[in-house]
Amino acid sequence: MKDSAVLLIDCPDRKGLVARVSGLLYRHGANILHADQHQDHEQALFFMRVEFALSDGKPFDQSSGGPNPSPTDGIDLEAFRAAFAPLAAELNMRWKLASSARRPRVALFCSQYLHCMADLLHRWRSGELHCEIPLIISNHRAVENLAAFYGIPFVHMPVTAASRPDVEAHQLELLHRHGVELVVLARYMQILSPVFVAKYPASIINVHHSFLPAFTGARPYHAAHVRGVKLIGATSHYVTEVLDDGPIIEQDVARISHRDQVEDLVARGRDLERMVLSRAVRWHLDRRILCYGNKTVVFD
Amino acid sequence: MKDSAVLLIDCPDRKGLVARVSGLLYRHGANILHADQHQDHEQALFFMRVEFALSDGKPFDQSSGGPNPSPTDGIDLEAFRAAFAPLAAELNMRWKLASSARRPRVALFCSQYLHCMADLLHRWRSGELHCEIPLIISNHRAVENLAAFYGIPFVHMPVTAASRPDVEAHQLELLHRHGVELVVLARYMQILSPVFVAKYPASIINVHHSFLPAFTGARPYHAAHVRGVKLIGATSHYVTEVLDDGPIIEQDVARISHRDQVEDLVARGRDLERMVLSRAVRWHLDRRILCYGNKTVVFD
Amino acid sequence: MKDSAVLLIDCPDRKGLVARVSGLLYRHGANILHADQHQDHEQALFFMRVEFALSDGKPFDQSSGGPNPSPTDGIDLEAFRAAFAPLAAELNMRWKLASSARRPRVALFCSQYLHCMADLLHRWRSGELHCEIPLIISNHRAVENLAAFYGIPFVHMPVTAASRPDVEAHQLELLHRHGVELVVLARYMQILSPVFVAKYPASIINVHHSFLPAFTGARPYHAAHVRGVKLIGATSHYVTEVLDDGPIIEQDVARISHRDQVEDLVARGRDLERMVLSRAVRWHLDRRILCYGNKTVVFD
Amino acid sequence: MKDSAVLLIDCPDRKGLVARVSGLLYRHGANILHADQHQDHEQALFFMRVEFALSDGKPFDQSSGGPNPSPTDGIDLEAFRAAFAPLAAELNMRWKLASSARRPRVALFCSQYLHCMADLLHRWRSGELHCEIPLIISNHRAVENLAAFYGIPFVHMPVTAASRPDVEAHQLELLHRHGVELVVLARYMQILSPVFVAKYPASIINVHHSFLPAFTGARPYHAAHVRGVKLIGATSHYVTEVLDDGPIIEQDVARISHRDQVEDLVARGRDLERMVLSRAVRWHLDRRILCYGNKTVVFD
Repeated sequence: MKDSAVLLIDCPDRKGLVARVSGLLYRHGANILHADQHQDHEQALFFMRVEFALSDGKPFDQSSGGPNPSPTDGIDLEAFRAAFAPLAAELNMRWKLASSARRPRVALFCSQYLHCMADLLHRWRSGELHCEIPLIISNHRAVENLAAFYGIPFVHMPVTAASRPDVEAHQLELLHRHGVELVVLARYMQILSPVFVAKYPASIINVHHSFLPAFTGARPYHAAHVRGVKLIGATSHYVTEVLDDGPIIEQDVARISHRDQVEDLVARGRDLERMVLSRAVRWHLDRRILCYGNKTVVFD
Repeated sequence: MKDSAVLLIDCPDRKGLVARVSGLLYRHGANILHADQHQDHEQALFFMRVEFALSDGKPFDQSSGGPNPSPTDGIDLEAFRAAFAPLAAELNMRWKLASSARRPRVALFCSQYLHCMADLLHRWRSGELHCEIPLIISNHRAVENLAAFYGIPFVHMPVTAASRPDVEAHQLELLHRHGVELVVLARYMQILSPVFVAKYPASIINVHHSFLPAFTGARPYHAAHVRGVKLIGATSHYVTEVLDDGPIIEQDVARISHRDQVEDLVARGRDLERMVLSRAVRWHLDRRILCYGNKTVVFD
Repeated sequence: MKDSAVLLIDCPDRKGLVARVSGLLYRHGANILHADQHQDHEQALFFMRVEFALSDGKPFDQSSGGPNPSPTDGIDLEAFRAAFAPLAAELNMRWKLASSARRPRVALFCSQYLHCMADLLHRWRSGELHCEIPLIISNHRAVENLAAFYGIPFVHMPVTAASRPDVEAHQLELLHRHGVELVVLARYMQILSPVFVAKYPASIINVHHSFLPAFTGARPYHAAHVRGVKLIGATSHYVTEVLDDGPIIEQDVARISHRDQVEDLVARGRDLERMVLSRAVRWHLDRRILCYGNKTVVFD
Repeated sequence: MKDSAVLLIDCPDRKGLVARVSGLLYRHGANILHADQHQDHEQALFFMRVEFALSDGKPFDQSSGGPNPSPTDGIDLEAFRAAFAPLAAELNMRWKLASSARRPRVALFCSQYLHCMADLLHRWRSGELHCEIPLIISNHRAVENLAAFYGIPFVHMPVTAASRPDVEAHQLELLHRHGVELVVLARYMQILSPVFVAKYPASIINVHHSFLPAFTGARPYHAAHVRGVKLIGATSHYVTEVLDDGPIIEQDVARISHRDQVEDLVARGRDLERMVLSRAVRWHLDRRILCYGNKTVVFD
């Protein structure tokens, strides 16, 4: 992970895309660590993720000679960026290029249930999540001790229907001031306004405690219990203007039986929520997710 | 399985139910093979399944003396039935008592997709499904050879909107004539009328190719593809008047990714459909399912 | 859970066991919340778990009259215990009867990896694990801050081959002094001596990071990678004298692919380890596990 | 699938491999449908699978001009093969290039249990398995009717210890005569000799009814029952000289409990065996598997 870079591309599909991207990487001396592509044939779209080492460790292929192999050891990321830009423009690419050394800044939001927060913070401390966490925001005080234990500033921001616009404005100001690039709603039980959501397109990850699109809205475990399903689920997704309707990143389910009452579903669901949320956050941070339409490509 | 009997009970919950049922079984000399209970505390309901041997193989417990232990080897099923009836009446029980030797008569319905049929028929031939299959009905001819291979009479009954009432009347007449107790819709792509459904309460099992309640109705794999879910599912359930809304018996899911197109979902879904339908049929035949409200208790 | 009691029984199978146990409970006015039985027909063994309310909330069944229904509200646990003892003796039962109000005392052991500890401690704080934790022991200092955060005394006890007997003697003395009934090895990377193990029969729970019996011993993820398996697993089990051979309580697996290197297996495995260990501890605390031979019955 | 070709490559890893392969495909006008790569960094190996259309349906990228874009519609497979050979030689590649139109010839072996056979044959008839099946061989007659139903020649070849060498010689002769490229052991309960195995390297697929490497050898479900595992498994793998030790292709597991006796494990295992064997055969036929060392890369 260290000392590598990730290039993420999506563009209209056409012949020769892999050849041209990999050719350019080759001429710049890139040592590709992982590469993955996807084509959506219905919509004629092309998606690619390439991870390459920034310093080198592999014998360079002098003899076989591509057009212009770099004689240096490793790759100059900014030189590659400058060379890639015109190709990307020509091929109508949306693209991101980032060094793995740069750790995105993430804000965590929660309410009174702390299982997802405790899980994310432990994973972060253990090095599983490659990010900075400058800020924890909650409409409850329950998370305060946990935030202190991990040394992360906590801001208590209660919300009422009347105060919501002001609170959101304050939240956005805080996020801006801390340079936050990703917002994670770790069981934050407030609905964000379209204004807020529009500031962070494909950059707010929520966990919903059902197997979407089943049981949208409030109290999904109760609804699942009433319907008598035999599996319960949880879903992590990007937040869009429409509640519980954004691009799905990850889902998982657990088997239940007639013996399980609502409180059992809630307890089992907590483990699902932890898993699908932490995977989504990790994949986002490792630049493995591309959104298109209302769907995701996850290069795992 | 051979030479055993199953007693299925549901009734209002009250103290002493297990004691009274197990006491009666004991006094009749029953050798209990499996017993399982469930209480729905919210609705104050009690459910019980007891499977007991009809002939005996276990030393009887003479010394410890219950009130009236039977000195005989095994249990007289009809004598027990006669003794149980007044207890059941007193305790407001709905109950069924059946020897495992009696094999229910099942009709299989299908349309042009045969994966569930081929699976059910092979399981039946192998002895996994304890039933008679006097009849296969389809609105297509695709199943004809398969039916012949297994030696089961096949009736081709095309359906149009106009002919549906007549066809259904004919189907019901056939089912009645063959003494059919369970109808299995193995990807039968016709909607049964409320009149038909009312004749077989909790006795028509359907497989729906989605994780209900998500994606009810037609073309669920297409809908799942459009929504961008990360898991697809299948559901077996009893048929009620409301489409795809009956009590769920079994569900299962499979992981998919952005690489899977609709035809991949269809292919993976076939395996899910086979599994959830065959389990539902087996559990029904082994008298493991109790319906209440719009839910099932499955004693597996 | 509150204000209930659990009766756990295993004994030679014979007719009438359910009738006699449930009859006695009934005569003492017990309101059964859950009951589950199991028979091992091969070995002619009977297992039963009954959970019943200590105070009452259900109308008592006066009219139907068992032999001696208690007129009081609820059940006197000690009176029932006194009445049950002679029955248990007659039927050669091993049995345990405990009020849910009594919370077992648990000691947690770990080494430098903290994912299982962090998970168990958060679940304990959240109320998922019904126990006291008077003591955390580790041969490393990594857990010290976490222990302090949860307010649990931490004892640092480094171990060498030479010091092991003395360290274990000290550990046993600590466990005894704190009244510990269950020892949980949450990735404790030391092998306990037979002397230690013998003090806590079926009362030391370990997590092994493989799908036992595959890959016993050290470095199972490396071994799994070398063998090229397509699923990795984790196993929680009671510790016996033979390494990684005790009765299995719970197992789970995760799918991997050729893309996953050893460090990926380690990362995915952490989630499995957390799940199987926390489930095992919860089931043990809720008195859902019976050991016999080298196997477990888990009444879940 | 129709009218496409698959190129499978493995070779020592070096820079520029993707660029050179994709560049050559581009210059030949290939329309890539799917491409996938894998690098084993430990062993410095590179693996690639490219599937490309043989006729074209996509606008060719004239303007952007690679070195020598083909002006024709589609790709000439033999011309590409001739051009690829020297590149492959230079880069020390092992490679296969095959049109999807060519359907490999497969022989199915079985003994008395037919669940895998019935499943494979139904999938083949339904079009899931892209192959010819010129031959079914069994040491029992149980499969005879099924073979007849699907119109496949059946050869009954009983085996004893004494007759094994002669029988195997006869089998090899039959396989040779029918041009068989893949042998599928669908619960064939005979061990093939090293002589036989050596004739079909990475071309004999077996299903073992356990989660390998646990429970190798005979009666794995009995062994699993004795050990008290909580999950059972099945494994499909290529056959090598060492029993149950060849490269693993696919594995799956199912949850069991203390209630399941050996016969229940056998019944549940049948579904696992069907799944892991049919997936392995499909992946092999679709040229998705590369073997190296004792492991597989599966491009799914």
